[in-house]
Amino acid sequence: MADPRVAEHARIVVNYSCKIKRGDFVVIGATPEARELVVALAAEIGRAGAGFVVTDMDESIHRAYILAADAETLSSFPPQELDLFRGADAIIQVISPSNTHEMGDVPPMKLQVAARARGALGGAMEGKRWNLTLHPTKALAQEAKMTYEAYCDFVYSAIIRDWAGFASEMSVLSERLAKAKSVRITGERTDITLSVEGRRPKVSAGDHNMPSGEVFVSPVETAVRGDVYFDLPVLYQGREIRGAQLSFRSGRVVKSSAEEGGDTLKDLLEVDQGAKRLGELGIGMNRGIDRFTRNILFDEKMGDTIHMAVGRAYPETGGTNKSAIHIDMIKSMKETGTIYLDGEAVYEKGRFVWEEERSRKGLESAAQRSQTGRTRGPGSHSRRPSD
Amino acid sequence: MADPRVAEHARIVVNYSCKIKRGDFVVIGATPEARELVVALAAEIGRAGAGFVVTDMDESIHRAYILAADAETLSSFPPQELDLFRGADAIIQVISPSNTHEMGDVPPMKLQVAARARGALGGAMEGKRWNLTLHPTKALAQEAKMTYEAYCDFVYSAIIRDWAGFASEMSVLSERLAKAKSVRITGERTDITLSVEGRRPKVSAGDHNMPSGEVFVSPVETAVRGDVYFDLPVLYQGREIRGAQLSFRSGRVVKSSAEEGGDTLKDLLEVDQGAKRLGELGIGMNRGIDRFTRNILFDEKMGDTIHMAVGRAYPETGGTNKSAIHIDMIKSMKETGTIYLDGEAVYEKGRFVWEEERSRKGLESAAQRSQTGRTRGPGSHSRRPSD
Repeated sequence: MADPRVAEHARIVVNYSCKIKRGDFVVIGATPEARELVVALAAEIGRAGAGFVVTDMDESIHRAYILAADAETLSSFPPQELDLFRGADAIIQVISPSNTHEMGDVPPMKLQVAARARGALGGAMEGKRWNLTLHPTKALAQEAKMTYEAYCDFVYSAIIRDWAGFASEMSVLSERLAKAKSVRITGERTDITLSVEGRRPKVSAGDHNMPSGEVFVSPVETAVRGDVYFDLPVLYQGREIRGAQLSFRSGRVVKSSAEEGGDTLKDLLEVDQGAKRLGELGIGMNRGIDRFTRNILFDEKMGDTIHMAVGRAYPETGGTNKSAIHIDMIKSMKETGTIYLDGEAVYEKGRFVWEEERSRKGLESAAQRSQTGRTRGPGSHSRRPSD
Repeated sequence: MADPRVAEHARIVVNYSCKIKRGDFVVIGATPEARELVVALAAEIGRAGAGFVVTDMDESIHRAYILAADAETLSSFPPQELDLFRGADAIIQVISPSNTHEMGDVPPMKLQVAARARGALGGAMEGKRWNLTLHPTKALAQEAKMTYEAYCDFVYSAIIRDWAGFASEMSVLSERLAKAKSVRITGERTDITLSVEGRRPKVSAGDHNMPSGEVFVSPVETAVRGDVYFDLPVLYQGREIRGAQLSFRSGRVVKSSAEEGGDTLKDLLEVDQGAKRLGELGIGMNRGIDRFTRNILFDEKMGDTIHMAVGRAYPETGGTNKSAIHIDMIKSMKETGTIYLDGEAVYEKGRFVWEEERSRKGLESAAQRSQTGRTRGPGSHSRRPSD
């Protein structure tokens, strides 16, 4: 018997995230390690009256191919595979590696050529229902430095929840943020102020990423000032930066350092003009994610954290910054962090001010939530399978 | 390190069977159990400059889907999946079950509906390069009542050989058969005569099935007479018949019996008008296959056997018989079997007459073979992935 939480995960992805209905055709991408979840997805898709195909994304198969193929071969993404995605009504991709270092001996140039060709997938997915999710594997548990059993508990406590109710909770913050002109964040070695005037904050509540749970916005590119310290490690294409500290003036990074990997950080900030400006402020809201596990699908949604990304902005929130990079850096807020909107502290001591109010309302509020459902559509900023 | 025979198997399928070239797009169907072979196929396809996608045919995924879906859902094959096959230049399907009984609790009606819908795949593969092959799994070893190590040895001794040379050897028989009017087969409880006048025998030498190794022809439907005894078990859609004995007059079965499953045999012969006539005479030529392993991809190519199928004929050999069934029944010939063409014994005591001649010519013949290559195109009768 499979873990009953696997079936629940499949129900959430098929019915809540992707809204699969009769006659739909679903493309599932997964590795063999995700067999339990794919079996459960197949049953749920079958019950919905839809059809599907499973493509095997086993990393050792792709490693063998990329090592053997020449640059000409790698640079063209097969149009037939693109057509498969274009023809899909929904796409479900499942992170489920058997070894997170399987690409370790592939020449970076080849990986880049293949990744660039794979970028064509982004266009094929435009406007479609799609979801990026994760099935717990031993390799992911190891990356998180956890036992497999504890890692499974961690994954399902992030995924299995009342998403409609959670979306409604998060919309309280996104609506406050939409009305605010400035955001100030203080905390350990941090005092930074951003303008979000005229921008459109979004709630990410599980349609494109599962788990999800963040409110995000691209700040005004020229109006970021102050200092920020990111206590959690930054992981970017296999490189790691610890204890990053950035100072901004008029929206640009004017000083950077890190406890480890400071040179890497400086190199990244020099990639292009946009690399020195903020593309995103995100506020992690999923308290089912209570620790850093070196997987950005989970890490950026961690409850009681904020993250900022230098580089590419999200146009759907009003952002205009362009860059080849988008590097998320995460900061814990629980102990000493405070978030001010237009000078008013809306988050401090590990709580949003309206949480007190809500918990006072108690049962009344719970009953209301279950009727209200999702009050606001989720944004389209999410990890993509091709990221 | 993978078994080096796996890489050799991949080279044969990609380069000899499917002739993959730069710019081709290949659809591979396999289960996770075939990972080693799929990794090797990916490398070989990459070296050839082609692209590919792997679809996961794990039987537990399909079982879950078929159990959950209703008949309406199962009866329509997704056009998008069909398009994937239509868009492919070559299709490689790998038999690699983790449990040969995984479909055992699926209602037969549902399996039939799904199989009928899947029939659409046949049309999509028309005129394409395709190959059906097998990767050794524990489940297949168990079905063959062998250890896994011995089963791997068995599989690779059938697959890894000089296919061009073997094709040339088999063409000696097919050319003799093409000139013959009648075939008489005698042996244990057997004396049967078939007309093959005007028919076009074919060589199956590895393009569509790997392993392969048979010469086959559809006999004249009205001109089969005598008795034949099949000592090897007949397997048809999970049903088993042992020791089948058939008597023919004017091409029709007039008497049937079996040591086990005689009623099943009688039922099958009543399916339709064509079920009582021979659709195929096949002569197994692959001596790398030296035992019965309950897998028809291998069994029908076993060296020193013949097989006959009641039901559907192969039009490409001139056959006209139509039926919903095509049931292969296999007979060992090594000990007591003789094959006569127009009265001349061409096979007896486990040898074809020209084998003596060839082995006398020794090195000369070997040199000749390697230059001649394939002298005759293989036929298109082969196990299909959708069979």
